[in-house]
Amino acid sequence: MKNLSKMFKPESVAVIGASNTPGKVGYIIVDNLINDGFEGKIYPVNPKGGEILGKQAYASIKDIPEKVDLAIITIPSVFVNETVKDCGEVGVENMVVITAGFKEVGEEGAKLEAELTALGEKYGINIIGPNSLGITDSHTPLNGSFSQMMPPKGNIAFISQSGAMMVAIIDWSVTSGIGFSKVISLGNKAGVNEIELLQYLADDDETNVIICYLESISDDEDFIRTMRETAVKKPIIILKSGSSSAGAEAASSHTGALAGSDLAFDTAFGQSGIMRVETMAELFDLGLAFSKAPLPQGKNVAIITNAGGGGVLTVDAMEKAGLDLVKFDEETTAKLKQCIPDEGSANNPIDVLGDAPVDRYKESLDIVLHDERVDSLIVMVCPTASADPDGIAQAILDGRRDSKKPIIVVNMGGPSFEDANNLLRDNHIPTYVFPETAVHALSAMTKFAKLEERKYDDVVEKITDVDKDTVKAIFDKVTADGRDTLLGSEAYAVAEAYGISAAPIKLSTSADEAAQLAEEMEFPVVLKIASDKILHKSDIGGVKVGIATPDEAKEAYDEIIANAKKAHPDIVPDGVEVQKMMETGQEVIVGMIKDKQFGPMIAFGMGGIYVNLIEDVSFKLAKGLSSQEIDEQIEATKVSELLKGYRGEAACDIEEVKEAIKRVARLTLDFPEISELDINPIFVYEEGSSALDIKIKL
Amino acid sequence: MKNLSKMFKPESVAVIGASNTPGKVGYIIVDNLINDGFEGKIYPVNPKGGEILGKQAYASIKDIPEKVDLAIITIPSVFVNETVKDCGEVGVENMVVITAGFKEVGEEGAKLEAELTALGEKYGINIIGPNSLGITDSHTPLNGSFSQMMPPKGNIAFISQSGAMMVAIIDWSVTSGIGFSKVISLGNKAGVNEIELLQYLADDDETNVIICYLESISDDEDFIRTMRETAVKKPIIILKSGSSSAGAEAASSHTGALAGSDLAFDTAFGQSGIMRVETMAELFDLGLAFSKAPLPQGKNVAIITNAGGGGVLTVDAMEKAGLDLVKFDEETTAKLKQCIPDEGSANNPIDVLGDAPVDRYKESLDIVLHDERVDSLIVMVCPTASADPDGIAQAILDGRRDSKKPIIVVNMGGPSFEDANNLLRDNHIPTYVFPETAVHALSAMTKFAKLEERKYDDVVEKITDVDKDTVKAIFDKVTADGRDTLLGSEAYAVAEAYGISAAPIKLSTSADEAAQLAEEMEFPVVLKIASDKILHKSDIGGVKVGIATPDEAKEAYDEIIANAKKAHPDIVPDGVEVQKMMETGQEVIVGMIKDKQFGPMIAFGMGGIYVNLIEDVSFKLAKGLSSQEIDEQIEATKVSELLKGYRGEAACDIEEVKEAIKRVARLTLDFPEISELDINPIFVYEEGSSALDIKIKL
Repeated sequence: MKNLSKMFKPESVAVIGASNTPGKVGYIIVDNLINDGFEGKIYPVNPKGGEILGKQAYASIKDIPEKVDLAIITIPSVFVNETVKDCGEVGVENMVVITAGFKEVGEEGAKLEAELTALGEKYGINIIGPNSLGITDSHTPLNGSFSQMMPPKGNIAFISQSGAMMVAIIDWSVTSGIGFSKVISLGNKAGVNEIELLQYLADDDETNVIICYLESISDDEDFIRTMRETAVKKPIIILKSGSSSAGAEAASSHTGALAGSDLAFDTAFGQSGIMRVETMAELFDLGLAFSKAPLPQGKNVAIITNAGGGGVLTVDAMEKAGLDLVKFDEETTAKLKQCIPDEGSANNPIDVLGDAPVDRYKESLDIVLHDERVDSLIVMVCPTASADPDGIAQAILDGRRDSKKPIIVVNMGGPSFEDANNLLRDNHIPTYVFPETAVHALSAMTKFAKLEERKYDDVVEKITDVDKDTVKAIFDKVTADGRDTLLGSEAYAVAEAYGISAAPIKLSTSADEAAQLAEEMEFPVVLKIASDKILHKSDIGGVKVGIATPDEAKEAYDEIIANAKKAHPDIVPDGVEVQKMMETGQEVIVGMIKDKQFGPMIAFGMGGIYVNLIEDVSFKLAKGLSSQEIDEQIEATKVSELLKGYRGEAACDIEEVKEAIKRVARLTLDFPEISELDINPIFVYEEGSSALDIKIKL
Repeated sequence: MKNLSKMFKPESVAVIGASNTPGKVGYIIVDNLINDGFEGKIYPVNPKGGEILGKQAYASIKDIPEKVDLAIITIPSVFVNETVKDCGEVGVENMVVITAGFKEVGEEGAKLEAELTALGEKYGINIIGPNSLGITDSHTPLNGSFSQMMPPKGNIAFISQSGAMMVAIIDWSVTSGIGFSKVISLGNKAGVNEIELLQYLADDDETNVIICYLESISDDEDFIRTMRETAVKKPIIILKSGSSSAGAEAASSHTGALAGSDLAFDTAFGQSGIMRVETMAELFDLGLAFSKAPLPQGKNVAIITNAGGGGVLTVDAMEKAGLDLVKFDEETTAKLKQCIPDEGSANNPIDVLGDAPVDRYKESLDIVLHDERVDSLIVMVCPTASADPDGIAQAILDGRRDSKKPIIVVNMGGPSFEDANNLLRDNHIPTYVFPETAVHALSAMTKFAKLEERKYDDVVEKITDVDKDTVKAIFDKVTADGRDTLLGSEAYAVAEAYGISAAPIKLSTSADEAAQLAEEMEFPVVLKIASDKILHKSDIGGVKVGIATPDEAKEAYDEIIANAKKAHPDIVPDGVEVQKMMETGQEVIVGMIKDKQFGPMIAFGMGGIYVNLIEDVSFKLAKGLSSQEIDEQIEATKVSELLKGYRGEAACDIEEVKEAIKRVARLTLDFPEISELDINPIFVYEEGSSALDIKIKL
């Protein structure tokens, strides 16, 4: 893990390309460092030397009399790499390259950038950028950016892959009342990437939550495992653009980074515990909640409102978000009845009525927070004629006492609540205008609090009874034959080598052999022409089902070969495949989609010929897959209801399904050369299962 | 349709219950009328007479020397009805009852309210309320409410069923920059309801868009047809609370109104052209767009942005919302290339770059608005170091010239854009902070613009070849027998009477008759014990399939009767039903759910035993159902792909499906006594169809 503490807490900063001309980047950065209160040493570097903004300027980094902790580079791109060398030679360990004109401008720039990366590695320099807007740390304080405004102080770390979006978000933070610990403009990620930053920030005491705007995710062999460890320490919320196909296209033309499959991103984020949001607004809404409130212990929510309608909207939103409206215990209800008039409601949601005086809020708050069933509280205030927003805000703080339960306040309105919102937010209570937003934020907090209960058992890696050599030999033969698709008998052999239950398929090259194989696997069997070149096997008489005796098998063999010869005189078939006919069971599919970035992604769902229409499929990445995740994957489908025994039907052997998922995961991890794999259907029985049709493409 | 013009534009207003005591409702209302600029006559009414807030007070409405256009009532509930009589006698035609203590407080209050309704009808008084916060009209101007603040002037009409939510929304409007034509607090809806208000407001020249917060929808025999006419005139946006089951429960305890099924609300809103939103925020976001911008002619959107990332987010959101990223014609692209640097993008989304001067926005805006392919435009501004928010806002106005295409601006940030937002909104350009909101609003506008293309052909009412008498006779017999469920043979007869293709089922009461019926309908047939009391017919040997000859039929009859007698010696079966065995076809379901408020709702979808698991079902209300809606209903399901011939399979007879939907709609409209109806499966063939299992319950 990179040590970035001197990046954000340097004792000295050199600005290479510092300038005396107002408006120039090299001027703004020195100015920002000084004006936004950086207390360490500032060394402007400019070949002309002299004085810049009252500080002595040096002609070169090499001329500075002490070792510099952080260099910020703003000189033209063609001079950057030379300067990086200089920095490396004098022991600079952290660097922000503001200069643009690298990968984002084409081939020439990409070459420069590759050099920059190499230099960083050679000298052990942590490089943020190039094409970065800079970094800020409001606790140091350090404004090492050319943002016009120092972001307000707080405990949200913000990583942005777009400079323009970064300034937009800093600007909006003033309106939305959030504050930042660090703001980091990633730029082209030639050195330090977002994964390394997330790891660093997860251990940063000044940061409670990390929000990110990202256009691509950096390659990391072990993304899921790395992020699992990180995301459980601090909430990580990512807005990843390019979720639509048109958007991904626009993104790739914009950043030059080839966007991976959005489904894979979703799956990777989900499996690693990262929260993905869909809109800019959510990024803030969730950031605000995590930065202010303690985490809830469970999903039981109490609501106090002075408007019945608002309570109903809150309950509507809670049901969608999976939060529960807690039923109070008798003691709580009895106490509430004493402080709430009959026209109101002492049940959840508690309606303190539109004319509620400040004390009624305070008392009911105090009562419900003491109910052990209550995990969190949403308090809603409408600015009715008799409502006193400031008084109610104070009452909430008073009523809370030392409770560690999160309280989220919905102050429904604008100007009436300005002071109240400030007071509450300053005291660890997030406030929102609308109930739906509050519920969304609370739901995210509840989910994050559950993250640490997740168990990772590396169940796929622990499988030992697989026969790699056999599979390797089969793949080699297929490749040697100039094919990319396995025959059914080959695919069966692969399944067998990896312990995936399948209906036996064997290749025969004579009528006698066909009969013998059929006898070995027990009748009835199917005979099928074996050739990857003959596509519509049934149409040409290349398939015979229900073969029940050795004689029938022999006859069928000869007929099939004859039919094939007639239809395709130019094709020499590999023989005839004999497959045992199986009883039908519940049909499921287990397949694999290969993602460029995250590797094999396992699909599970309802099988059969309408898989693509029904779309009852759920996905998990193979790498790091856990037993718990496999359970979730099965549970996420409708076919799981059928497997469990739908409406009194007998239950199927779900263990077999899990086994199939695990072993397909293992197979596709062991053999990255597999480009496509589909087992559809697998018949699942009350006991056991049988893969019927296995397609493997290299 | 009620004439409410004097309600909102009265020449004289009486405040009954006016008071000299500050803080009392009767004081606030007189004060609001005066201070918020009402120019007509104000008559305070108070038994003590004298002077109130400088106006002569009258002891009774009867003492006022002229006919009063609007009476606002604030006296205690027990005196209200007496006063309404007085008002009626002196010809008052419009009234707002602020007084609470009616239906919402229980039985006694409900009685008072029923009297109030009756008096309103007797005297022809339009009554808003009781339990209303009042009404405002910012154009009159009239503040006939006890809201602390007169809502800002604008062209959004707002109807709220909750007083507290109303004041919250007025408060928020200041922050969100929207203005209102009228604000109406519905109260208990004892007189004028929201449907009548919507009809009135749809013709109101001062109103461009109507937004509503509703907890219930008033009963209206012909809700869909009424609303279709209304919703096409003005955009109607409704936030209906109680969408969740827990929320509906909370709502009913809150308002005393029994909430209907949320699915039925959704369906009714969809079929009538009302836009339903899920959150308070959307209510504002959409209201803002409709109140400011002209409607787009199509769904082709152009984007101009100074941040590539923002463009990508916009494209992501557009794909979800069904909007298209237009491809510019060659002329446009050529022109754009002249004004945009190479590092930017002259393709859609247009990237004018972070350093874009004001003119680059203006020119590109002018160019794309002249491209005939472009229907609407989203302009995005990030507050980069070189961005000039105010200048860009002015440039947008200049570049727009006289274009009638909607322009939506995303000013990403807070304080930097305050003036720019005001300037743009004042000039018919809605502005948002985030791209996703802008896209959502534009998508709603695009859909609304398409509403007038909808065709309603009353296709269900036009069916004439149905035999009501036969069905009536069957239902009478069932009822006379003390049953509520039809036998299969009865249900078949009902289907036959309504022209629904079904596999014949006839009841036999002897072995000979069974054989004869079977011969008439052609073999093979199924024989089944006929009794609504025997539930598991197969288990007791009450079903025989594949009967192929008359002799087999006779034998089967006797066996079935014997088996039934053995299993249930106490039950006298109705006989044995003979059903023709049909070839299997594509399985669909057509069913009916009876909604308390909106009547029969027709379900269509994938049939078979897993209907409830697969949930591939779409719904339409029977009343007013059109051919276009039936097409939409079928199209909304996955089974429609199978019907159209999935992946080269033969297409099924979709006309038969439409016919079944129409005729089931007609049947359930003609016979409201049908409480449940399910036809599952219907086999649909390449030609024709056959309903296999018809369940009808009265």
